[in-house]
Amino acid sequence: MKEKYSVFLGNVGSCSDRYCAAYGRSYSWEELFERAASIPYLSGVDLVLTPEVLESFEVIRKLLKASDLKAVSLAVDHFTQAKWKQGSLSSVDPSIRKEAVRDTMRAMDLAAEIGCDLVTVWPGQDGYDYLFQADYIRERTLFADGIREACRHRPDIRLSLEYKAKEPRSHCYVNSTAATLLMIQEIGEKNCGAVLDYGHALLGYENPAEAVAMLAKYGNRLFHVHINDNYRLWDDDMIVGSVHTLECLEFFYWLRRTGYDGWMTIDQFPYRENGRDAVAESAAWLHALEQKIAQMDSEIIEDVLRKKDGIAASRLMRRILFPEEK
Amino acid sequence: MKEKYSVFLGNVGSCSDRYCAAYGRSYSWEELFERAASIPYLSGVDLVLTPEVLESFEVIRKLLKASDLKAVSLAVDHFTQAKWKQGSLSSVDPSIRKEAVRDTMRAMDLAAEIGCDLVTVWPGQDGYDYLFQADYIRERTLFADGIREACRHRPDIRLSLEYKAKEPRSHCYVNSTAATLLMIQEIGEKNCGAVLDYGHALLGYENPAEAVAMLAKYGNRLFHVHINDNYRLWDDDMIVGSVHTLECLEFFYWLRRTGYDGWMTIDQFPYRENGRDAVAESAAWLHALEQKIAQMDSEIIEDVLRKKDGIAASRLMRRILFPEEK
Amino acid sequence: MKEKYSVFLGNVGSCSDRYCAAYGRSYSWEELFERAASIPYLSGVDLVLTPEVLESFEVIRKLLKASDLKAVSLAVDHFTQAKWKQGSLSSVDPSIRKEAVRDTMRAMDLAAEIGCDLVTVWPGQDGYDYLFQADYIRERTLFADGIREACRHRPDIRLSLEYKAKEPRSHCYVNSTAATLLMIQEIGEKNCGAVLDYGHALLGYENPAEAVAMLAKYGNRLFHVHINDNYRLWDDDMIVGSVHTLECLEFFYWLRRTGYDGWMTIDQFPYRENGRDAVAESAAWLHALEQKIAQMDSEIIEDVLRKKDGIAASRLMRRILFPEEK
Amino acid sequence: MKEKYSVFLGNVGSCSDRYCAAYGRSYSWEELFERAASIPYLSGVDLVLTPEVLESFEVIRKLLKASDLKAVSLAVDHFTQAKWKQGSLSSVDPSIRKEAVRDTMRAMDLAAEIGCDLVTVWPGQDGYDYLFQADYIRERTLFADGIREACRHRPDIRLSLEYKAKEPRSHCYVNSTAATLLMIQEIGEKNCGAVLDYGHALLGYENPAEAVAMLAKYGNRLFHVHINDNYRLWDDDMIVGSVHTLECLEFFYWLRRTGYDGWMTIDQFPYRENGRDAVAESAAWLHALEQKIAQMDSEIIEDVLRKKDGIAASRLMRRILFPEEK
Repeated sequence: MKEKYSVFLGNVGSCSDRYCAAYGRSYSWEELFERAASIPYLSGVDLVLTPEVLESFEVIRKLLKASDLKAVSLAVDHFTQAKWKQGSLSSVDPSIRKEAVRDTMRAMDLAAEIGCDLVTVWPGQDGYDYLFQADYIRERTLFADGIREACRHRPDIRLSLEYKAKEPRSHCYVNSTAATLLMIQEIGEKNCGAVLDYGHALLGYENPAEAVAMLAKYGNRLFHVHINDNYRLWDDDMIVGSVHTLECLEFFYWLRRTGYDGWMTIDQFPYRENGRDAVAESAAWLHALEQKIAQMDSEIIEDVLRKKDGIAASRLMRRILFPEEK
Repeated sequence: MKEKYSVFLGNVGSCSDRYCAAYGRSYSWEELFERAASIPYLSGVDLVLTPEVLESFEVIRKLLKASDLKAVSLAVDHFTQAKWKQGSLSSVDPSIRKEAVRDTMRAMDLAAEIGCDLVTVWPGQDGYDYLFQADYIRERTLFADGIREACRHRPDIRLSLEYKAKEPRSHCYVNSTAATLLMIQEIGEKNCGAVLDYGHALLGYENPAEAVAMLAKYGNRLFHVHINDNYRLWDDDMIVGSVHTLECLEFFYWLRRTGYDGWMTIDQFPYRENGRDAVAESAAWLHALEQKIAQMDSEIIEDVLRKKDGIAASRLMRRILFPEEK
Repeated sequence: MKEKYSVFLGNVGSCSDRYCAAYGRSYSWEELFERAASIPYLSGVDLVLTPEVLESFEVIRKLLKASDLKAVSLAVDHFTQAKWKQGSLSSVDPSIRKEAVRDTMRAMDLAAEIGCDLVTVWPGQDGYDYLFQADYIRERTLFADGIREACRHRPDIRLSLEYKAKEPRSHCYVNSTAATLLMIQEIGEKNCGAVLDYGHALLGYENPAEAVAMLAKYGNRLFHVHINDNYRLWDDDMIVGSVHTLECLEFFYWLRRTGYDGWMTIDQFPYRENGRDAVAESAAWLHALEQKIAQMDSEIIEDVLRKKDGIAASRLMRRILFPEEK
Repeated sequence: MKEKYSVFLGNVGSCSDRYCAAYGRSYSWEELFERAASIPYLSGVDLVLTPEVLESFEVIRKLLKASDLKAVSLAVDHFTQAKWKQGSLSSVDPSIRKEAVRDTMRAMDLAAEIGCDLVTVWPGQDGYDYLFQADYIRERTLFADGIREACRHRPDIRLSLEYKAKEPRSHCYVNSTAATLLMIQEIGEKNCGAVLDYGHALLGYENPAEAVAMLAKYGNRLFHVHINDNYRLWDDDMIVGSVHTLECLEFFYWLRRTGYDGWMTIDQFPYRENGRDAVAESAAWLHALEQKIAQMDSEIIEDVLRKKDGIAASRLMRRILFPEEK
């Protein structure tokens, strides 16, 4: 990796939660691009294809061209519209599934148009809330079938599944690194991979570095990374490194060790902060943490991994943070 | 208790989350009242004094009168407006604190006007997100001072603090049964008590029945109850009894044992369901569960509690659910 | 299923935790068999091949024969001896790995000798505690290689991997339904499957019924079931049904729906209770819950699953528990 | 504070869990003292009055005198013996309660004898496992009565309550900072305070620094500190700082800010590590972290706290770790 940092365009604006519809004012597309472009270390943007973005796609395309920011991924919107409330590609309603596949293909086409080879699918509404509510086998199969169909639409675009244990559903189907890998194997298409969201890994009692390792081990399927931080029990989408600093160092090490050379998109919800400044703060953490790892002699780290010694691991982390220490 | 069930008026409408601004259509005040009134076992409503409710207060007051529904509590809105984003009564900004106290007093006055003696304060924005962000001592003291001031405004109205460990802040100050009792003791006013939200208790690894016991033990401070259900790690606000059925039975037993005679307000977020029907389903659970407890010989239960025998406790629960069992 | 209930033999004795070495007295093999045999609804035992059990294997074999209890599975001991503290089949030490494979093969031979076709492997020590402590890729591969080698030792015995997110390690490799399925696919042997421990599923924010579905969907790999209950955040190993009653009903439904016809072993740690009586209480719950499901018209349940309606799901559960309800 | 670090004597030996009775060999009292004395930065020991310690008390007293280590606290053993399995001071059996009070008083006398003014009470068995198992009001009152009686036995010794949400019971009564403060107020004795265990705070979704603040705010009741680390969902008792580094920095800041001048006892369970070395590693972290805070200009920190700015808080933490950063 070499600091290929990007951001979800909307993150530099303002956001809402289920109680408060607007924590800040809204920003024009021009403003959002300006704000993103002003942030040190950032060189890309990630876009969610909501109805608003689709409507303004020409404007956005021009702003992209005019800026130095690269579009690193387009995300299909399978989660902000009421029609997906009982699922998108896994819906029990065939017309909804059809629409979800069509939207995914359109996203692939739009990505190709703007010179981006990656589409993100986050099936946050595909899952269930209540016991006895869902046919877990059938709905998972429907989902896999839909993704396979989309993958075959154009093999030049990579489709990437973002996993998360819960929210907005209390239980999602594509909910962990391992479940996503199983799903990818079931789909069986070369252009299908995973988005690892650092905070989603934490939320699922996963260690993000280990998630990187698993995605490498089982078919080298890490296509994209989202980054943020949280308190482990919810997807708080906070400033990178502000809670799980050591996990982030190990994460960078394993990205490097497994040869990841994709992008890392900052994905925050700075409810109470200025969005632009909160993202800039995250970028500064990313820079500092990646530098720390880049400066390490990897043989020292490998030696600890080989010995499987907890004390040596602790000492290693202590010295990464405090190099003056013995 | 004898089935004094109520509902947050908005719950019979539709709701949003941080991704989807509207899972359903909006409803007029008339419709909301009609929908609430149509639900078996319900006889009250709870209202949050958002700007929209305040604006339509006269209309709502008429609809209340025209219906058979009693207003059981008015809740101050310290959480839906951007101005509270860094706290209401605990804000570091004195003008915000002043406004928060004033809004609380206004809620007390409005409650009195409509023959309701209970005001709910839920300080969901009073807390912090980041380490090193807050002066925990000072802000807690400011909060207590604000509530005390409001309590003294009119001792004929009871002020009730609703606690929750987190959300929307990742850390809230009024976050547990015990923390709320400490706060109430600090405030030192007779008309200050607690709202126990069943789901908030579950979220905080509290046992709702034990929370009832603590509120009884330390000064008899249970003023109001909210009811719903969740999966323990987040405030999912689901249909009552659909996840934690046995906890709900024990909860009813302890409400009865400690002589609670207030209301129980259904507080759900039925994102994907018809709001009216989801609330009706909760009311049906409440009725069934309360009946089960009412039919029990309390001496049998007391005998188990006296002996502190885990197996006897399990057998008791098994027989409440399956009376035909040995 | 038709009430094929068994128990870990040690469960009817007494147990210890990290603070208290003995919560009760120890029992002779004869006593343990007598106690297990006295429990209604039980017809099998599960055995862990600790050094003590291996030493007394002839005695135990005779007691088995003399009783009406069937040996339903033998579990390899990869977790009670200090030598496994940094892992068994995934150890970085080749001599430890060799020993772990040898012990697994011996368990298979012993199982065959006593007419049991199932061996359980629970790799509780295979994982890590500290960040930067482990080479996640290499150790997972070593583990898979070891299991594959053992599977090939004798295809007439089924090897079954028991998964759990954590404990005794703070992070285990075989940690979820999906991770276990990935591992089984990697191993690629027909006689390799999974043990689903109901409490482990709850601990990992998994819904046990959904775990059954996934094990059915991906190759029909459910070989064995352990049953107990807990408060979701730790493997409390409590009496069945005493906490998650509705989950247990759905679990029975999906076992039946997917055609599971194996055993269900009660796996508790009744620290403070009489072990025999705590297990008997679990068996009584199992009987009651399975009866409830057996009595249901499955078409009613299937109809709810097809419609994906949360309210209908809630109503269904309410009526299973309270058949007199509308 | 100025590096008053101590350790539980047993921590430098070896430990067990519920599966493995001995992860390492046992050590003589002489060896344990030698091992503790060999650790840089440590100058005290903490002792649990188990039957074994009581039996060897004269030997231990001599070893204490011969070493440079100060006895910083004696802990009553209300948790390793089977007799406490259903509670100590809160037991429903009056003879158990009597014994628990007597043991507490004996600990106070022994502490006085060896020039130590602090006794720790950790009521890990006082709580419940099952719903409908306990009379929460009565048992809490019994517990408070017992502590009060012991406090009055000798006001020259401080009694300190250690709280923890769970384990060994699935629910403990003295379970959070706020619950402990309520209990202390109920007890009403000057020599009654709290032990804050850093890992227990994390386990209870508490922020350790905020716990320090609350104990200062409500009567200045922080008498003692235990330190370790964990993954938030269980009391893993790991090496200090190896998981929650930033929390530990804030913790040191608030200890300093509130004028804490007591001891900090390392309390680990190094199952798989050499106990002496694992504790030495913790001490090295403590030294490094406390130095970092001591070097900070506190006015810079206070300024952030006054402004309640999340971005400023993040930047502050980033610069504490990486002083070369902007």
